[in-house]
Amino acid sequence: MNAAILSVGTEILFGQIVNTNSVYLSRQLNMLGFDVLFHHTVGDNEKRLSETLSNSLDSCDIVVTTGGLGPTEDDMTKETVCSVLGDKLVKHEPSLRALEALAKKRKYGKLTENNYKQAMMPSKAVVFPNPNGTAPAFALEMKGKYVISLPGPPREMMSIFESEVKPFLKPFQDGAIVYRTIRLFGIGESTLETRLLDLINSQTDPTIATYAKEGECSVRVASKRKTEEEAKRAVDEVVDIIKGRFADYIFSCDDEELVDVVAGKLIAEDISFSLAESCTGGRLAAKLVSVPGISKVFDRGLVTYTEKAKTDELGVNPETIEKFSVYSREVAIEMVRGLSEKTGSKLCVSVTGVLDSGEKTPDLQPGSAYVALKYKDKLYDTLIQGRNINREWNGNYLVLCILNLINKTIDA
Amino acid sequence: MNAAILSVGTEILFGQIVNTNSVYLSRQLNMLGFDVLFHHTVGDNEKRLSETLSNSLDSCDIVVTTGGLGPTEDDMTKETVCSVLGDKLVKHEPSLRALEALAKKRKYGKLTENNYKQAMMPSKAVVFPNPNGTAPAFALEMKGKYVISLPGPPREMMSIFESEVKPFLKPFQDGAIVYRTIRLFGIGESTLETRLLDLINSQTDPTIATYAKEGECSVRVASKRKTEEEAKRAVDEVVDIIKGRFADYIFSCDDEELVDVVAGKLIAEDISFSLAESCTGGRLAAKLVSVPGISKVFDRGLVTYTEKAKTDELGVNPETIEKFSVYSREVAIEMVRGLSEKTGSKLCVSVTGVLDSGEKTPDLQPGSAYVALKYKDKLYDTLIQGRNINREWNGNYLVLCILNLINKTIDA
Repeated sequence: MNAAILSVGTEILFGQIVNTNSVYLSRQLNMLGFDVLFHHTVGDNEKRLSETLSNSLDSCDIVVTTGGLGPTEDDMTKETVCSVLGDKLVKHEPSLRALEALAKKRKYGKLTENNYKQAMMPSKAVVFPNPNGTAPAFALEMKGKYVISLPGPPREMMSIFESEVKPFLKPFQDGAIVYRTIRLFGIGESTLETRLLDLINSQTDPTIATYAKEGECSVRVASKRKTEEEAKRAVDEVVDIIKGRFADYIFSCDDEELVDVVAGKLIAEDISFSLAESCTGGRLAAKLVSVPGISKVFDRGLVTYTEKAKTDELGVNPETIEKFSVYSREVAIEMVRGLSEKTGSKLCVSVTGVLDSGEKTPDLQPGSAYVALKYKDKLYDTLIQGRNINREWNGNYLVLCILNLINKTIDA
Repeated sequence: MNAAILSVGTEILFGQIVNTNSVYLSRQLNMLGFDVLFHHTVGDNEKRLSETLSNSLDSCDIVVTTGGLGPTEDDMTKETVCSVLGDKLVKHEPSLRALEALAKKRKYGKLTENNYKQAMMPSKAVVFPNPNGTAPAFALEMKGKYVISLPGPPREMMSIFESEVKPFLKPFQDGAIVYRTIRLFGIGESTLETRLLDLINSQTDPTIATYAKEGECSVRVASKRKTEEEAKRAVDEVVDIIKGRFADYIFSCDDEELVDVVAGKLIAEDISFSLAESCTGGRLAAKLVSVPGISKVFDRGLVTYTEKAKTDELGVNPETIEKFSVYSREVAIEMVRGLSEKTGSKLCVSVTGVLDSGEKTPDLQPGSAYVALKYKDKLYDTLIQGRNINREWNGNYLVLCILNLINKTIDA
């Protein structure tokens, strides 16, 4: 079945917010086996909403709308869906009671006239309760086609989709799509694609597509078959072939983030660790701390930005800095040695380099850094040559490179 | 004049990438005085692209497309625009020469048949060169309506829009839109809106709209007048009124990020600073280090995650931890005192708290933290009560709260 996603909200057309709802819904609907043919966004305007909804229903079996279910006059999705599908709004008792209960729990005080509008639903709709907000969602049918209207706030929308819409859509799935995403680091997308061309061209299902983002690559292997089992088997076979070809670059076959893979290993293998960061300024620590459970193994991170801090905190010899510059292999090594002596952590990592061209140095291109790792009494060091896109990108890329190094070092 | 943005690319419909192009184009077109009425996304499918383009031209004066200008068979935007607008593709000599020059510079080797396809342009088009890529852009007119086709990669698209499309659109601007965005911290959106209702309701221009994101609020004041000067004056008047009402909460009247405001002051006033983070795990340091020029004033950051690290690095007394718990005002104060003694920085900040419910403590709600600041020999401390959305959100929110505290402290 074909689907369209229709987002309602003038703030999207102003460019004030990024439309992440349609990203989420696209992924979910594709996974359930629906073909998403269109995304549309219209403002809080009844005529354009009505036209776009009609057009979408002409070309698609299912239209999922987000937004415009709130209590204000701008919110007109329910009214418009009713007028296009020929239904009318009536008071919906369970929604009214849920609204009153929520208002009590959140201490909203007396409900306003506007609030009661949110308990009005299309008379023939299947209503989906919204435990996280005041706007319930619903599905309305007309001649075998469906409009599913969800609230705009992403957290509310996703929660209703997960618990209510997925089971509702189950009977309409024709076949099953299964996909897996393999993630790689250290290989360019064009090389990757070239080395996959035989697979890409030899079959129509599973489909194989490559993507690139911020120094990383991924391969999406997708299959649509009669049953989930069949699709899963087809995908797994291709994933195994790709694994064989790119083992050196793959860090996940199940779309995990590199930081989650690394943190997962550190926690599972009980590897205590400490970090000494210069140019990355705490980004590496912050990235690893974003993973729940990391406190079990993370001892400390020292963001030694100045030369004095490097000397004070890590015992870097000022003469080493004088002789080799602060952006040098030698300083990275002294940093990691100092950190290891101080903390006794099983894994110690240091990084010193240049984030942008504001920090003038003849020794290093902006975006590049020296990294040293100490693990199980072995010391590794390397120079990461960055691409110098901009300060933000360079910092993120260095963190990815270091996480990749940690991953390889633990596995070695 | 009305505009629609039409994004072409199956990867958007799969939810594999976020459509940031339409965010950028919306902002730009609105600022130039165009009303953006629709966003549409279609896949690499000629029929649907053609239909959507035709529909868009029925309702809008300008349709800006992105994507589908590449060298592969999937790329069909040029062909489709030609067929809808009644033109044909012809070899475009300047584009051909630019392509050959780029290929030489980037060492692509011999150009393929596919590459030459990128030098074919609609015969009646105004062609916009693309200095950053192989796909030139163009504008094509039909009966006073325009299609402007830009490449999909954001960096290429934005660069062409800035240097070519803006001047091209100049004659079509009817009046000028000016807007300013005021940003506030520490006030809820509903309170903000309530206290602005008189202004919001008393006029149709400037328009006033409130937005909320991650613990912050903003107010967008926009005016569309005959001249830019007139619009600017109207906006500034309203901004001044709002400034008067919310001075305690406003950190920028020109849409700056809080971190840029704070870092800007630290740099301008030459305030050296150091940080001692526990729960935020380096996020605060990383956030401040993301601002260029910060190395002038940032000494160091200590991410003291374990109790031992707090004692080792900052001289926190284990008895204090024992007596008051590691999540306490007393520990935050000892952390900041230790940091100040060690570094001598003018501004020292410490934070200790709980990011999620994985760290069980009876003392603090998840997402909450104790913060201590030492500045010019004065010591401040406070408890930040978080809202506990999730680990990521809580960390970001704490960082915002601390930046806000720093901002207030410097200004005091």
